[in-house]
Amino acid sequence: HTHSFKTSDNLMLRYILGEDDDMPTPTLFTEMDTLQHDGDEMEWKESARWVKFEEKVEEGGERWSKPHVSTLTLHSLFELRTCIQTGSVLLDLEGYSLPQIVDDIVDRQVADGLIGPELREKVSFVLLRKHRHQHKKPIHLSLADMGKSNNSPTSEFCVECNRKWCVSTCFSYDVSDPAQSRSMNDISDKPSTDQMKNKFMKKIPRDAEASNVLIGEVDFLDKPFVAFVRLAQATTLGGLTEVPVPTRFLFVLLGPHGKGKSYNEIGRAIATLMVDDLFSDVAYKARDRDDLIAGIDEFLDEVIVLPPGEWDPKIRIEPPKKVPSADMRKSVLNLNELGQVNGTGTAGGPGGGEDEEMFCGGLWLDIKRKVPWILSDFSQGFHIQSISAVLFIYLGCITNAITFGGLLGDATDNYQGVMESFLGTALAGTVFCLLGGQPLIILSSTGPILIFEKLLYEFCKSNTIDYMELRLWIGLHSCLQCLILVATDASYIIKYITRFTEEGFSSLISFIFISDAIKKMYYPINRVFKPDYVTTYRCECIAPDQGDHLSVTGPTLLPRVYLPSPCTYNITGLDWSQLSKKECVKYGGALLGNACKYVPDLALISFILFFGTYSMTVSLKKFKTSRYFPTKCRSLVGDFSIIISILVFCGIDYLLGLDTPKLHVPTEVKPTRPDRGWVVMPFGKNPWWVYVASAVPALLVTILIFMDQQISAVIVNRKENKLKKGCGYHLDLFWVGILMAVCSFLGLPWYVAATVISIAHIDSLKMESESSAPGEQPQFLGVREQRLTGILVFVLTGVSIFLAPVLQYIPMPVLYGVFLYMGVASLAGIQFWERIKLYLMPAKHQPDFSFLRHVPLRRVHLFTLVQIICLAVLWTLKSTVAAIIFPVMILGLMVVRKMMDLMFSQHDLAWLDDILPEKDKKKEKDGKKKKDHKRTKAAEPESDEEPKSPLPPPVKIPMDTIDLPSAPDPSVTPPTQPPV
Amino acid sequence: HTHSFKTSDNLMLRYILGEDDDMPTPTLFTEMDTLQHDGDEMEWKESARWVKFEEKVEEGGERWSKPHVSTLTLHSLFELRTCIQTGSVLLDLEGYSLPQIVDDIVDRQVADGLIGPELREKVSFVLLRKHRHQHKKPIHLSLADMGKSNNSPTSEFCVECNRKWCVSTCFSYDVSDPAQSRSMNDISDKPSTDQMKNKFMKKIPRDAEASNVLIGEVDFLDKPFVAFVRLAQATTLGGLTEVPVPTRFLFVLLGPHGKGKSYNEIGRAIATLMVDDLFSDVAYKARDRDDLIAGIDEFLDEVIVLPPGEWDPKIRIEPPKKVPSADMRKSVLNLNELGQVNGTGTAGGPGGGEDEEMFCGGLWLDIKRKVPWILSDFSQGFHIQSISAVLFIYLGCITNAITFGGLLGDATDNYQGVMESFLGTALAGTVFCLLGGQPLIILSSTGPILIFEKLLYEFCKSNTIDYMELRLWIGLHSCLQCLILVATDASYIIKYITRFTEEGFSSLISFIFISDAIKKMYYPINRVFKPDYVTTYRCECIAPDQGDHLSVTGPTLLPRVYLPSPCTYNITGLDWSQLSKKECVKYGGALLGNACKYVPDLALISFILFFGTYSMTVSLKKFKTSRYFPTKCRSLVGDFSIIISILVFCGIDYLLGLDTPKLHVPTEVKPTRPDRGWVVMPFGKNPWWVYVASAVPALLVTILIFMDQQISAVIVNRKENKLKKGCGYHLDLFWVGILMAVCSFLGLPWYVAATVISIAHIDSLKMESESSAPGEQPQFLGVREQRLTGILVFVLTGVSIFLAPVLQYIPMPVLYGVFLYMGVASLAGIQFWERIKLYLMPAKHQPDFSFLRHVPLRRVHLFTLVQIICLAVLWTLKSTVAAIIFPVMILGLMVVRKMMDLMFSQHDLAWLDDILPEKDKKKEKDGKKKKDHKRTKAAEPESDEEPKSPLPPPVKIPMDTIDLPSAPDPSVTPPTQPPV
Repeated sequence: HTHSFKTSDNLMLRYILGEDDDMPTPTLFTEMDTLQHDGDEMEWKESARWVKFEEKVEEGGERWSKPHVSTLTLHSLFELRTCIQTGSVLLDLEGYSLPQIVDDIVDRQVADGLIGPELREKVSFVLLRKHRHQHKKPIHLSLADMGKSNNSPTSEFCVECNRKWCVSTCFSYDVSDPAQSRSMNDISDKPSTDQMKNKFMKKIPRDAEASNVLIGEVDFLDKPFVAFVRLAQATTLGGLTEVPVPTRFLFVLLGPHGKGKSYNEIGRAIATLMVDDLFSDVAYKARDRDDLIAGIDEFLDEVIVLPPGEWDPKIRIEPPKKVPSADMRKSVLNLNELGQVNGTGTAGGPGGGEDEEMFCGGLWLDIKRKVPWILSDFSQGFHIQSISAVLFIYLGCITNAITFGGLLGDATDNYQGVMESFLGTALAGTVFCLLGGQPLIILSSTGPILIFEKLLYEFCKSNTIDYMELRLWIGLHSCLQCLILVATDASYIIKYITRFTEEGFSSLISFIFISDAIKKMYYPINRVFKPDYVTTYRCECIAPDQGDHLSVTGPTLLPRVYLPSPCTYNITGLDWSQLSKKECVKYGGALLGNACKYVPDLALISFILFFGTYSMTVSLKKFKTSRYFPTKCRSLVGDFSIIISILVFCGIDYLLGLDTPKLHVPTEVKPTRPDRGWVVMPFGKNPWWVYVASAVPALLVTILIFMDQQISAVIVNRKENKLKKGCGYHLDLFWVGILMAVCSFLGLPWYVAATVISIAHIDSLKMESESSAPGEQPQFLGVREQRLTGILVFVLTGVSIFLAPVLQYIPMPVLYGVFLYMGVASLAGIQFWERIKLYLMPAKHQPDFSFLRHVPLRRVHLFTLVQIICLAVLWTLKSTVAAIIFPVMILGLMVVRKMMDLMFSQHDLAWLDDILPEKDKKKEKDGKKKKDHKRTKAAEPESDEEPKSPLPPPVKIPMDTIDLPSAPDPSVTPPTQPPV
Repeated sequence: HTHSFKTSDNLMLRYILGEDDDMPTPTLFTEMDTLQHDGDEMEWKESARWVKFEEKVEEGGERWSKPHVSTLTLHSLFELRTCIQTGSVLLDLEGYSLPQIVDDIVDRQVADGLIGPELREKVSFVLLRKHRHQHKKPIHLSLADMGKSNNSPTSEFCVECNRKWCVSTCFSYDVSDPAQSRSMNDISDKPSTDQMKNKFMKKIPRDAEASNVLIGEVDFLDKPFVAFVRLAQATTLGGLTEVPVPTRFLFVLLGPHGKGKSYNEIGRAIATLMVDDLFSDVAYKARDRDDLIAGIDEFLDEVIVLPPGEWDPKIRIEPPKKVPSADMRKSVLNLNELGQVNGTGTAGGPGGGEDEEMFCGGLWLDIKRKVPWILSDFSQGFHIQSISAVLFIYLGCITNAITFGGLLGDATDNYQGVMESFLGTALAGTVFCLLGGQPLIILSSTGPILIFEKLLYEFCKSNTIDYMELRLWIGLHSCLQCLILVATDASYIIKYITRFTEEGFSSLISFIFISDAIKKMYYPINRVFKPDYVTTYRCECIAPDQGDHLSVTGPTLLPRVYLPSPCTYNITGLDWSQLSKKECVKYGGALLGNACKYVPDLALISFILFFGTYSMTVSLKKFKTSRYFPTKCRSLVGDFSIIISILVFCGIDYLLGLDTPKLHVPTEVKPTRPDRGWVVMPFGKNPWWVYVASAVPALLVTILIFMDQQISAVIVNRKENKLKKGCGYHLDLFWVGILMAVCSFLGLPWYVAATVISIAHIDSLKMESESSAPGEQPQFLGVREQRLTGILVFVLTGVSIFLAPVLQYIPMPVLYGVFLYMGVASLAGIQFWERIKLYLMPAKHQPDFSFLRHVPLRRVHLFTLVQIICLAVLWTLKSTVAAIIFPVMILGLMVVRKMMDLMFSQHDLAWLDDILPEKDKKKEKDGKKKKDHKRTKAAEPESDEEPKSPLPPPVKIPMDTIDLPSAPDPSVTPPTQPPV
């Protein structure tokens, strides 16, 4: 009976398909046409089509349904099996035109005695009726069409060549003269223009061939007429198919009236089979009827069955995100391993895929890996997405440059100011993006460096050491130390940076980003203002006491240096009440009044701009997956969401005309402090021992730079980003070191990889596949890995000085809104974050994460708790002066992670984190581990994301047919089998 | 062969289940336990359970999976069939304890020769091992548990009685002495405390019985041991089941090692079958093995098959929103009609279900319909949801009362002001909710009435007619006319109010609501303020010229009447610069300065409060369906979302302390205008002919009231709201008329149903089913139809005068935010709105609306376009003085709808709208139509929402087995059937 056809099928299928499966068979496009009667007229009307999933013609709606998974009935599959068993099967028929093929089919049927010869003409006539296809029309045509027809549904089936339907030719049905209709068939041999114009063609692979399913009820038959035809050569059979694809297969089912529904289901069943990868292979290679039956049986054996009480058959199931590859089913020998595909290419920790290469050659290997991509590093940059990415990252960079420039200026008495910050960013960024190992990394000033500079300047001032010269020497030492780290392949340490460390670091940086952005939004609000007492609110400039004139000018002397106003101004002659706030302060007046410290509306408009920019960006990003507008338009809006939001809120700000703080860039190229030049001289100002001793602070800087740089690189090189050009940790570090030296000579700030902006850079360059078959989900393909966007960003930063007239319209709150977005976006998709959310969810509502299937919830919570505690400690530390050793604390994170090996089993850690490498002593075990790993995968078919570590070796269970005792009781017989 | 068991099965099943299916069989809870080995120890461990859907134990995660649809393999179903065919089937076994049952099973197996007698002890021993169940633990326990166990996955299977697992007793496995283990079985007879405490019990229906599936691999068998047992009486078998539910069925499958996976699938198959409504019926009623086989075959015939290439078997399918009822499958005779259930109770237009009743008796029938509900009208109000509803609607009502009161006061020189508005709202609302036909309707002032009053007052003033007296007479005439309309059953007209009219009206009202709310948000912003010139901003009070003193006091005389300040104040002695704005104006000073007309921060804080209240309400509503927090907590937050948002933003407003406009209610009960009393006298002030002539304007008011009232009632009574207590159009109108007269006597405004607030009232009282089986979706059950919330709202409105100290903390922008929410929410779910969205969607992204399946897109667009044009015309009209005839324009809408019968086919209109009744001449056709309708439904099984009109009569296709020609060629045989 049926259940045991499995093993025999496997052997049979293997035989049919052949051991070597080198020549892939073409993709099949299947169209199902049903016979429509309108009085005496008949025609074939397209009722469904399959590329991979089913699309049905909605009769009343005159439209295609959404692509959906074909839900069949078991009944129809068994009926189909019977059809193939009893009908005519014509394999490798030489066919050049439909009439000839129809002749051959009918001849065979008559020869087999399946129909009487008197039906020959009638059957041929029916099979040669014209085919009407459902076409999508552009919407403007549909609108123009509106109101034209006021027809009832039946009149839609009239045979006029109206615009809704494309027909090849129109003939009237003359039943009295079959001979005439025989020659005057409705099918032309050439593809019609409608076929050629059909835009659906682009959804079908180029090499595709068609299979046509024809289902109809006729009055002259008293039993079904079934034929399955495979042509020797795929042939374009006129208007048979809606697209100009040559037909290879033909399935015909004609039967007496009254069972149309059942026939229809059989048609859907064969159509679904034809688009099944494995069955279509079988259909191409079958030598006889039995091979086809074996194919059906294999299909039956693999079908997924939903119980009728738990599912409504009327629900159209959306295509899944991923379907198992048919290759698994094709490798017939090990059918048991079905469902263990879904392979992620490279397992192992971040960058771990190239471990071997990286540690035995370092820099040289990095360069070797990068050279082949030189051309594509630029050519891949030419894409509309790049424009958005460049603008987005550019705005992020200059905001950063201005913020850090201002802070550095305060910290170093303008030895390094906004101007230096801009030039340094431009220089370092351009060089790194042009020559670095991972050009997606964006260099920027970071907090720890800022704190270091501040401490260094204070030290210099109190010890009267020349700051710029000392800094130069520290930079040189640090550069040297970096180069030593490069030479000794010290980047080995990143092997110990697992998800735990990565997540801790990037969350912390994101939080800092977010909190900085929010802190900038504080403006005082006048909360005691009462509109009724508006008459009492004022801010007046009060002249200083007459006797104090000389002493008052004292404190204002310094600022006056920078002001164009002449010092010779006669202070006593001033009309004090007419002075502006600045002037008042300048001339030593006192500002008196309850309105002085408030700017009305400023706080709230800033909040609106800040929060508005953020939420509009988020909404526009989401718009990408909405239902509205065509895909192209949506993805454009999604890509440019940040730019659009910035423009919109700059516009709002401009229209409101309130005096919000704006982005002001320097407009002249000169050092911020007039008493320094562009080049720092290495000798002359400090005693000689300073040159040597500076190696000690340089060590701190080196660790700082190294950790900051490498962990950011690890995050960028995450395997989730599917980078294809490989990493270049050594090359990265090499250039960071060189740039340190250069910047030190020029008196510019030092630069290192900026985590959040780099993540934003990657996010703005993500590629998705354009889905091919209708209903297939677009897949994340990877990132546009190129150097062009980075270079452009930094070149733009360099020339920002000339862009000042444009940039001054951008309010700072808008830019901080962008920062907020960057911070929040870089948190998204971190597993740590998902695990924190689990705390708030009752177990039954938790999403089906694979780690939850394999690790007890309380262990997951414990792991998350450890991470939260670490993060809290780091946050507390970074708020103190200890922030300078902040990157060193990452080492602390790695130590904590190492200790967690004691708290958690390796099994749990494999699911929640990665397994730490165990130095050389385990090196030889590596090969074995990988094997273990594979076996693990095989044993857990339900895991869609496999852990990166060995699980306990499972028992491999062959899933053969169950050996039940053959019934000793003669009353127990196999199910009754009525003859066909 | 298999495909043709259908017809014979049908007959057989009918026979098994019996013609009358009166006694329903209990619901089955199924638990599947698998045998676990740990060294020599063995125990049964729960691995999955079914109430309706499958829940699996996640091995590693130690948790229950989400409930999902059981996806089976065809293979396992066929293997199960074989198992039942060849194994032991013991029906109606007398069993009182597990050991005795096991004895019986083993005896039978030995008797049938299926196992040798030497295995008797071993099998019994295995079957009597203890059962370990997966229990959900509350999260705090899990957290406390954290870190306790650092076990590897294998150690989880140890037999200790740890807290994770509940075991009945602990025994060691002594394989050398089977006799001892025989007596010392692990099963106790009483339900354990863990069983009793299991909270899962509440998910299982009370009458439920259990079926236990035991699957295991053992080393002493060489062929499977299969037994299916039905007990004569459901018996609690100790710790066999995780919940204290008596066991009725037992399925045992033991087999040799190596095929555990296959056994597991068979176990899942039988478990899924046992929870299938139809199969469980069969299992209860089966008389022998063949009946069970027939049940399996019926199940197989109904299963839904997913092709392996289009679906990934690893995906767990979420339970669908609705599954077809098994009753359809049970009515075996007409199995073809499967899938046409989903019946919506009453078809026809809104309120159409009770047409017959409504037109032949009107008011009397309404009362008759309402009387039986008197008690439940109050008892159903006691629910926590009512509190939220009352507060929400109360705030809406008083905001409305204040807004309209203010406008009415302006329009009528305070003859009707805020005080009258409050009292009138309270009076009319309370009476209507207490006695009206549809107590969910909220009465309120509406725009057209306001305009009418304004015109009337102007007319009176210019013609020196007494306004209040004229108004009284108009009210009396109008009341009389309403009563005539009630008596003549004029509410018949609502039959012509189809979806088209309804949507047009409610969208328009919503738009007006939204635009009014937004308009209130305009405050001027000082856009020229420059912070630097803050010194020049001021607003000073300038004393009037000395010579103008007397003339200046002139214009301020009138306001001074209401001010407490004494007129004798010496103006010349004032320090003008110290005066507040109000005082300055009062004493005739001039305000001079550029700061006078601005209130800083007011515009923006108002915007933030307004928009914040709106968006927080929307987010909290959405929160109801999020994953976070337990369902109860979420639904509470969802229900109270508006109150929470109002409180939050009142708090923010309070903290910021800005002078936003607040809700000020009158605090004293006295007429707004001091020269009017509380009662209007009907005679004396106007000439006699005015009393008669006032019937003419009254006619306009009556039409106004009638249309406004009835269309709002139609919208409230929409069948989507699933109201159970019926409508009461005549009773509604009766009370509106009476209230008009009363209000006219008291000089209060007139009231009529307010669409938007009524919709909000209904929305806040919606009930959802508490889902029972895990995975079942909650269903919308209807609305808490009661009078309590309405009455409370209006009583609260009445006593608002005493609530003034609390209400004054509520800023008006927050309340307008609530208005915005009401307006937007009342738009949601309108099909018109969905159809407008379709314009923006490419056809392939459009949602699967049933009307899109049956009406061509361009016809849908055309229909929507007509609606949009109508709406635009109405909007334009209502912005002019023509607004007074606004409700009359609804008649215009109905005329447009009537004309659309010429543009659209009845088929299209049936899907997009409702079919208009065609007066008496078609009455006799009604019966016929309904029949047609039913046939249509039968023919279109895929439509989940049937149109309310006849479709062209379809051909009814019986879906029997296809009659294929019996093969004349002897080589074509049925599929080979290897013996079992």
